Amino acid sequence: MHRTKVRVVEDALDANNTIAQANRADFDRHDVSVVNLMSAPGAGKTTLLERALDELDGVRVGVLEGDVAGSFDADRLSLLHLPVVQLNTDAGFGGECHLDANMVRTALPALPLAELDLLVIENVGNLVCPAEFRVGEDARIMVCSVTEGEDKPLKYPLMFRACELVLINKIDLVPHLDVDVDRLLANLDAVHPGVPHMLVSARTGEGVDAFRGWLTELPARAAAPA
Amino acid sequence: MHRTKVRVVEDALDANNTIAQANRADFDRHDVSVVNLMSAPGAGKTTLLERALDELDGVRVGVLEGDVAGSFDADRLSLLHLPVVQLNTDAGFGGECHLDANMVRTALPALPLAELDLLVIENVGNLVCPAEFRVGEDARIMVCSVTEGEDKPLKYPLMFRACELVLINKIDLVPHLDVDVDRLLANLDAVHPGVPHMLVSARTGEGVDAFRGWLTELPARAAAPA
Repeated sequence: MHRTKVRVVEDALDANNTIAQANRADFDRHDVSVVNLMSAPGAGKTTLLERALDELDGVRVGVLEGDVAGSFDADRLSLLHLPVVQLNTDAGFGGECHLDANMVRTALPALPLAELDLLVIENVGNLVCPAEFRVGEDARIMVCSVTEGEDKPLKYPLMFRACELVLINKIDLVPHLDVDVDRLLANLDAVHPGVPHMLVSARTGEGVDAFRGWLTELPARAAAPA
Repeated sequence: MHRTKVRVVEDALDANNTIAQANRADFDRHDVSVVNLMSAPGAGKTTLLERALDELDGVRVGVLEGDVAGSFDADRLSLLHLPVVQLNTDAGFGGECHLDANMVRTALPALPLAELDLLVIENVGNLVCPAEFRVGEDARIMVCSVTEGEDKPLKYPLMFRACELVLINKIDLVPHLDVDVDRLLANLDAVHPGVPHMLVSARTGEGVDAFRGWLTELPARAAAPA
């Protein structure tokens, strides 16, 4: 019984990876770098994008918004006059808790890939399953809010291991919390040694320049030989 | 293909409900009321339990802690000298993002049901999938932190509909946030009209008395005819 389940999961992930490679081929053909942005619900992904993408000079950016229901985030980002496509997962039973490669693939025709340098895919807010599904991205970024507490890397290790950059958000709130940011960073380093991180506040703008720089340089990094 | 997937999901939920009924029968036999406590990661479930269960006079309480990995929350609650059992979901691929009835069932032999009036099951931090799986509980409580923003009921409607009580936590932080609590409550009422809610702060203790009262009265409510 357990063995059968594991086998089904493996098959599903094999199928996902095959479609992720097809997405990757489409992105490469159009010379688009792709970020998969992940976090728990309410960690501030959309507010960070509002801040960072507003002034991304010289990089033509589009956004694919993943949500169980609604288009609240896509509506907000549309105000930046970027191409934004909403992808809702509630066609699945009760709402899928993550994006997978096939969902992203169904949205690609709605995106003007030929006119983009960078595509940001904002995943469904969830610290577990999004980390299990590649979608054809160059880089995975996760956002962790200091309000979530310093133990999150230890409790959701796969997510914190599966990313190339960690944004520690809402640092403006640290004086009002009992959180120990040094311990949060030590826990992060314990599960993903050496992963780059940035301390940011989407609300005040602190640290957002560094994130913007990282995004601006991604196309060059992605094109460089590994 | 899609039809097949829906069918598989329905079968899985049927199987889950069958096991949930078996759990329910065990709880009834021992006269134990059961709460399924759900939230996004870092909304403050464990800190609320530390506050509320410490002084739950006259009610013998136990806790089943669900986490992908680690026993951090169980270790914290053990300090209250309650029976606490840790249930890790990382035996599933990459870690299951929710508890289901069968996982709870495997943990029941480790719990002294005959010596309990109330069992609190702290689910995995996730606003999507835990709402889809009944585990045999009397009541589902969800915790929503004001730091997550006022849009969460609209973006994760199933979770906010699937509960009998909503705790709006971390209200001590409201002066430091841009969140509009009235709008959060209006959004909650839009997706789940009339659901009871409490404004609480696990950090300062504000509102925790009301939550404690609700938990204390649950066995009587659960025993009353519907």
